[in-house]
Formats: sequence, C-alpha cells, structure tokens
Amino acid sequence: MNNELKVVIDTGASQGIADTANRMTPRYLEDFAPGQKFGSGRLTIDKERIITFAKEFDPQPFHLDEQAATQTIFRGLAASGWHTAALTMRLLVESEFKPAGGIVGVGFEELRWPRPVRPGDELHLEIEVLEVRASKSRPNEGLLKVRTATLNQNNEPVQISVVNLVARRRPQALTGQL
Amino acid sequence: MNNELKVVIDTGASQGIADTANRMTPRYLEDFAPGQKFGSGRLTIDKERIITFAKEFDPQPFHLDEQAATQTIFRGLAASGWHTAALTMRLLVESEFKPAGGIVGVGFEELRWPRPVRPGDELHLEIEVLEVRASKSRPNEGLLKVRTATLNQNNEPVQISVVNLVARRRPQALTGQL
Repeated sequence: MNNELKVVIDTGASQGIADTANRMTPRYLEDFAPGQKFGSGRLTIDKERIITFAKEFDPQPFHLDEQAATQTIFRGLAASGWHTAALTMRLLVESEFKPAGGIVGVGFEELRWPRPVRPGDELHLEIEVLEVRASKSRPNEGLLKVRTATLNQNNEPVQISVVNLVARRRPQALTGQL
Repeated sequence: MNNELKVVIDTGASQGIADTANRMTPRYLEDFAPGQKFGSGRLTIDKERIITFAKEFDPQPFHLDEQAATQTIFRGLAASGWHTAALTMRLLVESEFKPAGGIVGVGFEELRWPRPVRPGDELHLEIEVLEVRASKSRPNEGLLKVRTATLNQNNEPVQISVVNLVARRRPQALTGQL
C-alpha cells in the first residue's frame, strides 16, 4: 500500500482529478478546480552544482564553501534559495500540472525557504490549486492561484510558494462546433 | 552632471547614507533606516545563457527557442523569471547593500515580473529599505524589509520584490568595552 502510493507520487500522477484518460493533455482554466493536487518527479541536488550555481548567481560563503559555511547562520553548506526555486520550477514544468500555454507567473503572494537545502537532498513537489478565476477584462484568460510545497527526502518543506498564474480558457469556437 | 550620476550608480554607490567613510563595511541592523537607497552594478543577459538556463531549470518554449517563442504569450524569446531573480541576487550580493552575516531571506511579501527580459538586456537594481525591526525573541537579530526593483537599460522594471531579511545587531559587548 505504501509502495503503491510512492510510485504514484514519483511519476507525478495527479490526485483528485476525475479524468484520468487525458492525464498529459494541457489543461484549460475550466479543467482546474480548487483543491486539486498534483505530484511531481524527484531531483537530487549535488554539492558541485550548489557551488557553481552560487558562484554565478549568489556568491556568499554559506553557498560556496563547506568550511566557511560552518561559521555562518546556515552552519554548513546550503543551496541558494534561487537554486531551490529554479529546481522547483523544473519539477513543476515536468509535472502533470500542465496549464495550456505554459506556466506563466503573474506574481507571488508568498515565497519562503523554511529550512536549508543540503548537498544530496532529493526534492519533490506537492502542488495544490487554491483558486480559479476567469478574467473580467480578458475573455480568453483566467488566473490560477497555486500553492507549491517543495519537500526534501524526509518530507520536510524547504520552499513554500503561492503564485498567481495565467491560464487559458477553453476555446469556445471549438466547443460550439461539436 | 549626467555622467557623474551614471558613474555613481554603476559602481553601486549608496545613496542617502551619511557615513561615506565605511562604504564597503558590512552593516548591522543599527546602520539601516527606512528610506535608505542603494544602487548596483550592471549585468547583461545573453541569448545563449537564457536558453541554457531554461534547459536546466525552466524548459518551456518561450525560454528555449526564438522561433517557437513567437507563437507564445511572450511573442519572442524571454528569460525565465528565475533567471532574472538569480541575476538580481548576484547584483544585490555585489552591491553596497551589505548586511553583516550576508543576505538571508526569511520570505517574500511580493515577487513579480512586470515585463519580459530579452536577450541583450542590461539589468541594474534600485534597492530601498522599507522597515527596520529588532527581534523580540532573538536579541542579536532583527529584520529588514527591503524593496528591490530590477530595471532594464530603459529603466523599465522587469522584476519587483519585497523581502524580509535577517540582519545582525551590532555586538553590544564590543561597544561596552570601548
């Protein structure tokens, strides 16, 4: 029973969605509903990439050098939060959460890193749709509010985000012709 | 006059801070005040890095392929928002905004990308301290609320963020011994 659940999550299968037939088809605004949950695959972060990412984007001692990091607030080497955020995006893009037209963020309401990501950590996502709203000004669009928790191999959250995403509405012309 | 101003901003000089003598010294909580502003250096983003970043972290057509991108919401190749965020961090770390102990984010109150970043764009920052608060529970720490605008070469904002950062208080023991 536990193994079965693990496999479902590992392959990024959707949870709580009725139409299992078209799992990998892009979803329109009308296909989303509050409470829907999606899983993701898993990615492991290694020490070398933590350091090279930090050299390019976040050159601070706690992201660059194991020895120096022991003297900092992180008490050891930790990935840049932007590295965690970027890996989260990779997992999100490759998950079954597939809004038609792509994952395009309007803005975050929340983004935080409750604990450090360490070399060798294995990350996966829990994605939940919080709100689905049609746009008043743009008839072909809407907004999805989505909460994403990035968890490590102990299921501890290392990143929490709440974002509003653009979502396309299902083309009305096509529906009318059927 | 214009040239002079440009040089000041380019070298990341602080604006609105009285003590110009110790510009590159790390700043403690007590050295910050609401309304302080800091500039940054400049970084140019090129097409090849936009694409390689996207391949690793955000593999969507509008970040990967110039031709395919013309058919998307971005109407042309655009950098991943996470690439913009990571470059913003680089500019922030290398600016004169130097809290003692490093730049460590507790969480964002706002993070958005109001317009796309295109190949060849040159980015720089406008950093403003919004709030300075001592911690009630941790006597050696406080929080800085900071707004950062990432601007392109036309001074148009491509990223806006408001974040709370950990800041160290000036060591009291040292002060007492003087």
